[in-house]
Amino acid sequence: MANPINELIEHLSRLPGIGERTATRLAFHLMRSNPVFREGLSSAIARLSEVHLCTVCSTVTDRDPCAICTSHVRKHEVICVVEKPSDIYSIERLHSYQGVYHVLHGLLSPLEGIAPGDLRIAQLQKRIQEEAPKEVILALSPTLEGDATSAFLVKQLSAYSFPISRLASGLAIGSNLEFADQITLGKAFEARTRVG
Amino acid sequence: MANPINELIEHLSRLPGIGERTATRLAFHLMRSNPVFREGLSSAIARLSEVHLCTVCSTVTDRDPCAICTSHVRKHEVICVVEKPSDIYSIERLHSYQGVYHVLHGLLSPLEGIAPGDLRIAQLQKRIQEEAPKEVILALSPTLEGDATSAFLVKQLSAYSFPISRLASGLAIGSNLEFADQITLGKAFEARTRVG
Repeated sequence: MANPINELIEHLSRLPGIGERTATRLAFHLMRSNPVFREGLSSAIARLSEVHLCTVCSTVTDRDPCAICTSHVRKHEVICVVEKPSDIYSIERLHSYQGVYHVLHGLLSPLEGIAPGDLRIAQLQKRIQEEAPKEVILALSPTLEGDATSAFLVKQLSAYSFPISRLASGLAIGSNLEFADQITLGKAFEARTRVG
Repeated sequence: MANPINELIEHLSRLPGIGERTATRLAFHLMRSNPVFREGLSSAIARLSEVHLCTVCSTVTDRDPCAICTSHVRKHEVICVVEKPSDIYSIERLHSYQGVYHVLHGLLSPLEGIAPGDLRIAQLQKRIQEEAPKEVILALSPTLEGDATSAFLVKQLSAYSFPISRLASGLAIGSNLEFADQITLGKAFEARTRVG
């Protein structure tokens, strides 16, 4: 077997934003660090294989339903629709949103051939029918695809009387939700505008 | 057990230069990546515990003596002295040095109380006595500690007739060898100046 240091540098340098020199520094940092920390990191990576989708909200989780969907302190009558699981992490870091989530796993894109059937939209509709929420927040990136997906969902849900809102476009247009700073994201959350 | 994603984000964000948002992006990247790649990364981190020091050159290795010390294509009569194992990686990346190495595991520092006995200097002297090299290159950072260590070694080895050189100070003064770009490091290697 290859030298684990070379092996580690080779693997780390294939991660996004990490070049060979950063990978080398990280590898030697890991070698000097506490073995308990290393084992924790190694096992967390190995355990990613246990992760699957929550049958309620479609986020990634190691138990089903996920921690948010089974929480007694969350407001289950407010559903925040996001593109991908990592968007939940961005919003949770605000510590201000108390509702639950629904992950679409993508955005509509005629150019890339992504149609409503490719996203978890049917699951969202079924869930709304069963749970009768009081509010739906569309927290999708203010891009062409995010706008198209939001418009599609507003149309699909037009039969319901609950308010549907989108995040205020305090978010820079054309940018990705994932890279927004917390203040901008927080303001956008507060000033969300009703669209349906 | 905690959710492996949260666990992984928590661990990654404790690595140098990686904040919580970068850790989140890396964690979700790993979750989407090939399970074979993840297993390779996880096992390389776990296998760091198997790494120990080469009894010849004191670098970190999973076999003893290390791959460089046992190589038939390296020039064993040229010894390059470095501060730490990762410096070997910086120099190897040049693909121009053909000799072997000796790792001191630190630099002399009266301020931090690091004396010659704390470094692998005795091992270097013993090795030089036994191997009778034709050249010794001191590839230490051009800092106060690097200069002091080089001066000390030059004095210690003054009884020998082989040339002792230091890397040319094309390296920015006060900087760390680890952060030098390859061209600067390569030029510094070529234009090393004899000091003993």
